[in-house]
Amino acid sequence: MVLLSALTPVLVAVLCVVIGLLFVRPKSKGSEVKTREKSKAFRPWVDQDLQDDTHITESHDDDLEDHNEEEEDLAHVPYSPPRYNEEAMLKKSQDFYSIMDQRRSVRFISPEPVPREVIDNVIRTAGTAPSGAHTEPWTFVVVSDAETKHQIRLIVEEEEEVNYRQRMGDKWVNDLARLKTNWIKEYLDVAPYLLLIFKQTYGILPNGKKKTHYYNEISVCISCGILLAALQNVGLVTVTSTLLNCGPQLRLLLKRPANEKLLMLLPVGYPASGATVPDLKRKPLNDIRVHI
Amino acid sequence: MVLLSALTPVLVAVLCVVIGLLFVRPKSKGSEVKTREKSKAFRPWVDQDLQDDTHITESHDDDLEDHNEEEEDLAHVPYSPPRYNEEAMLKKSQDFYSIMDQRRSVRFISPEPVPREVIDNVIRTAGTAPSGAHTEPWTFVVVSDAETKHQIRLIVEEEEEVNYRQRMGDKWVNDLARLKTNWIKEYLDVAPYLLLIFKQTYGILPNGKKKTHYYNEISVCISCGILLAALQNVGLVTVTSTLLNCGPQLRLLLKRPANEKLLMLLPVGYPASGATVPDLKRKPLNDIRVHI
Repeated sequence: MVLLSALTPVLVAVLCVVIGLLFVRPKSKGSEVKTREKSKAFRPWVDQDLQDDTHITESHDDDLEDHNEEEEDLAHVPYSPPRYNEEAMLKKSQDFYSIMDQRRSVRFISPEPVPREVIDNVIRTAGTAPSGAHTEPWTFVVVSDAETKHQIRLIVEEEEEVNYRQRMGDKWVNDLARLKTNWIKEYLDVAPYLLLIFKQTYGILPNGKKKTHYYNEISVCISCGILLAALQNVGLVTVTSTLLNCGPQLRLLLKRPANEKLLMLLPVGYPASGATVPDLKRKPLNDIRVHI
Repeated sequence: MVLLSALTPVLVAVLCVVIGLLFVRPKSKGSEVKTREKSKAFRPWVDQDLQDDTHITESHDDDLEDHNEEEEDLAHVPYSPPRYNEEAMLKKSQDFYSIMDQRRSVRFISPEPVPREVIDNVIRTAGTAPSGAHTEPWTFVVVSDAETKHQIRLIVEEEEEVNYRQRMGDKWVNDLARLKTNWIKEYLDVAPYLLLIFKQTYGILPNGKKKTHYYNEISVCISCGILLAALQNVGLVTVTSTLLNCGPQLRLLLKRPANEKLLMLLPVGYPASGATVPDLKRKPLNDIRVHI
């Protein structure tokens, strides 16, 4: 009995060590991940090197078009786009640059109506963007209905107010005080069109299963760049905005399915008479281009 | 003594429980995060709802231009871009659409030289994109040096081989067998230019501190969309590719600083004679646009 009770502590100690070890492994893994996750939560716009690895394990679709699984069943057809001589190319590249260089983010939008066909062509143009495995993972919601536009404004400004009163640090409160345009979004009522651009985070196959939409965010952002070019080309203005925390409510308001997430909102119209923009300059070529 | 050794197991047991509890808490937190992280690693291209919240805590910069801290110090100037009548707008929107609709991802690129000035104008045009807080977080590396192009090819294809031999599952190995173009990238030697597009994940302030580049990936992708439009406009072709796992090596090869991460690589040139593309169709307008 004495011997037993003298041995028991040893046994319990061993048990203790074993249990300890059981917890140690998950903990170290967990905390390691936690650090990553934490730094991510802290600077979500900074990509982690990790990303390369996470991609590689599951997805190896590294071209943004054409590599869909049906490709082998697709006929391959000759491709010969228009070709210009060097002089013409140079001229065209200069002209396109000078048109695009006039683009600015404009927050003062005229209520004047804009032809629907023009907006449709702009969206058709955005739909020519490349996409991961040619999944075309975009939905463009065009809102011209005044009541819906107003409800969008209510959701956005209410969310901003919550952000302002509860979610911001002092630094941001100060910034916000200076950036009133960021907080009151009159253009959501005024612009003849609001374009809400959704990324489809996955697709639905005929058999009801989920279809992977590789790089859906990258693809939709590229499409958005082409859309901005198309708007500028016809003399319409917009301001490209992401709407933090508004996505879920706007998705429900617009009755979009669960696989769609709001990426951007663009109010579209003619600039208001007397519209102004901050006198920003762009970096010169030598600051953005390196030649090797 | 007997009493003591009889009590010891109790003490050790208590100790064991305490140690157990110490591990339990981190573990539960950790595993929770781990699940998120795991599902992220599993479908990295699917955004987590979480993202809205992570953004909000630190960044409230929800327009992709102009909201930089110096804005209050900037003069605001009148803005009146060219305005076209409805007929002209409709015509311009149709013409631009039909040019962009001819764009395809092309992997057969001609070695013929292309004027440097044209490439420079294309990059200037890409540089007109909006960006978070007008940070312009992009670097376009233009590679025309044959040796450097070849080294890029070696890095890319070597990495692909490692992917192929060690990182892929059977499913992918099968896919890869079908998608040879994805694995051998001859165009990396052949194309007169390789454009490597880097996102600057942060900037450096004059005082040496880091400057936040909000939404740098979204901004650079939008810029890339405008760049694709500019290439198409002059009759040049490319294929938009992300290069999984090659980023760090290519960054070192091209001597880019640590704040820059490779986002895309675009080989640029005229299409090779006899170039073909898979006979893909694009979704009709009604499949990508909803009107309310």
